[in-house]
Amino acid sequence: MSNCVLCKDELKPEEGQLIWRGDDCRIILVNDPDLPGFCRVIWNRHVAEMTDLTYGEREHLMNLVFVVEEAIRHVMRPEKVNIAALGNMVPHIHWHVIPRFKDDAFYPGSAWSSRAQETPAAVLAARKQKAMELPGVIKAAISSLA
Amino acid sequence: MSNCVLCKDELKPEEGQLIWRGDDCRIILVNDPDLPGFCRVIWNRHVAEMTDLTYGEREHLMNLVFVVEEAIRHVMRPEKVNIAALGNMVPHIHWHVIPRFKDDAFYPGSAWSSRAQETPAAVLAARKQKAMELPGVIKAAISSLA
Repeated sequence: MSNCVLCKDELKPEEGQLIWRGDDCRIILVNDPDLPGFCRVIWNRHVAEMTDLTYGEREHLMNLVFVVEEAIRHVMRPEKVNIAALGNMVPHIHWHVIPRFKDDAFYPGSAWSSRAQETPAAVLAARKQKAMELPGVIKAAISSLA
Repeated sequence: MSNCVLCKDELKPEEGQLIWRGDDCRIILVNDPDLPGFCRVIWNRHVAEMTDLTYGEREHLMNLVFVVEEAIRHVMRPEKVNIAALGNMVPHIHWHVIPRFKDDAFYPGSAWSSRAQETPAAVLAARKQKAMELPGVIKAAISSLA
């Protein structure tokens, strides 16, 4: 759709970094100042709801979401991983996969809840550094899926 | 786990209504005053993350989540369905499946965002009435899965 930002498929460097692109999906490392390691798995075609996909497409997409979850757990060692497909603002299927920590800005609320605290700057910086390992780990995991 | 509310598996009538229970999962119609039709799919065993489940278990659980999404779309005719597994407060796998409407209290934010508006009372009442059809539709859909 011409007015959909996810159809445009242009990622500005300040928004994030492309980790992997396949025929159906792509995976982004989101540049979120509060939540390092935040990844997004985006269905390439403009589809609004999971149940608009075939069973095979859903399974393929969820497998990638879980590859990202696994990589996030391995690399970031978070307290919890949050997974969500909302799309109220951009009704084009995209899954948020977010490492959460007890000291992150929104914990224990959702990543869309009110800010609850400030993460110590050194902790955030270390996590941002760690998150740079995610692209390699995710790409390796996807190669071994095939 | 003894201190986990989802392990206790006791649903107070004011919290919601059990729609279906299987060996691995159960489905609840949540009594949310702002979001009628809100359902929750809960893994019965205490497991924190999707990637703690086997591939088969994940597929089974996601199939049920998508059955609920389909039923919500059919019955509630929402603007969008939101799906999320967060678990920061209760780290026991549960999926929120939420019909969203342009006039709901939090739209276009997440269901955990700040309140944005009030839904007209008559609209809410009609939606609550409609949501009463969900248990029957979900149970029928699950029977036909087997």
